[in-house]
Amino acid sequence: MIDWIAFDADDTLWKNEEYYIAGRNRFLEILQKYGLDTADIENYDQFEVGNIQYFGYGVMSFVLSMIEIGIEITEERIHPSDIQKLIQLAKEMLSQEVEVFEGVSLLLERLSAKFPLMLITKGDLLHQQRKFAASGLAQYFRAIEVVSDKSSAVYEGILNRYNIDPARFLMVGNSLRSDILPILELGGWAVHLADHPTWSHEDDPANQLDQEHYLEVEGISQVWDKMVEADLFSKQV
Amino acid sequence: MIDWIAFDADDTLWKNEEYYIAGRNRFLEILQKYGLDTADIENYDQFEVGNIQYFGYGVMSFVLSMIEIGIEITEERIHPSDIQKLIQLAKEMLSQEVEVFEGVSLLLERLSAKFPLMLITKGDLLHQQRKFAASGLAQYFRAIEVVSDKSSAVYEGILNRYNIDPARFLMVGNSLRSDILPILELGGWAVHLADHPTWSHEDDPANQLDQEHYLEVEGISQVWDKMVEADLFSKQV
Repeated sequence: MIDWIAFDADDTLWKNEEYYIAGRNRFLEILQKYGLDTADIENYDQFEVGNIQYFGYGVMSFVLSMIEIGIEITEERIHPSDIQKLIQLAKEMLSQEVEVFEGVSLLLERLSAKFPLMLITKGDLLHQQRKFAASGLAQYFRAIEVVSDKSSAVYEGILNRYNIDPARFLMVGNSLRSDILPILELGGWAVHLADHPTWSHEDDPANQLDQEHYLEVEGISQVWDKMVEADLFSKQV
Repeated sequence: MIDWIAFDADDTLWKNEEYYIAGRNRFLEILQKYGLDTADIENYDQFEVGNIQYFGYGVMSFVLSMIEIGIEITEERIHPSDIQKLIQLAKEMLSQEVEVFEGVSLLLERLSAKFPLMLITKGDLLHQQRKFAASGLAQYFRAIEVVSDKSSAVYEGILNRYNIDPARFLMVGNSLRSDILPILELGGWAVHLADHPTWSHEDDPANQLDQEHYLEVEGISQVWDKMVEADLFSKQV
């Protein structure tokens, strides 16, 4: 029933959101020196989202937004050495070791014996490619697609290019907005990792789920059994 | 003799280096307020090249490097409002209108009637995709590949994926280092746009050119005739 399985990468296969939270905490520590606290920066979330149109998703976008917010919120009192600390943070985040979640390798090994696997990931091209190479997981994937956005139009373009019937395509990911809803919209199958950490911007009211093609699991270790249960292996086994 | 023709984008199909030069001039104007001039920042070029490993190629990398250099060279005297100006510059560069060189549309129209065309471009994924969409040239291309680097290994990966014989592949571009030498190394054909502006980092001693597969033209308007002259249309005409 399934020809291809695609996986999201950040927060699906390996840790990601955690580093952003740690980065944001470093930023808050800096701001505390200027008498500012969490409540003061809360209204600046929209700043970051507004910058996506220019900088896209990823570490550089995140850090450029923090620099802007830092300048704005301190009314230009922020010291250049603190801005340098944010750039240093960007470099650290971009060279951060890749921590693959437990159970991922085993799942990919088993699935890749039955299906061609594709990675579909969003963010800085260089960073995503480097994480892919460093993850040790590249051997399991037939293809990698780094995209600047995960809209249903973008997925449709990929499916067309690979000549994949959406009804025979399954995507596994942690973000309802980016990994699940666009796939269901196209008539594909989606497995949602409900317990993985997700950036708040990636949350989405899950009100229009196509229940028939939607599978929900608590973690990566349940994906295999869930697929068996949904009879998705029928033609392969 | 040729199955696919690929084009570089920045400084081959549309203006690019010019905006970087203008951006650098804006940076120099800022630095003048701190009593610094061109000679002072000359030694900092390596800063920018050293940052490519983290930030890759593109506007965000360029601006993050300028912010770092600005902080370093002013010994942390640079005012946050000037750093904000650099971030604003990044946003302007990223939303800059695409100015396609004269003669490009005509060439692509004629070539796309005979060959499948591919765009192979390096830099920020979102920015490159947006420029491609805004250029009005997308209709001529069968494929677009945004890459984080243009090494012969990267080109080889693309050729393998599309199942293209290197000896039947031709690449057109302005950069010897990025567009020409790696292709010649793989046994492909390359047309060098010798008069297009090129970032100094992209220069390369052209000492190992495979003369048989190397064509040089002064500008985009000469590409067609040069290909005819080299008998590359023989099977198609």
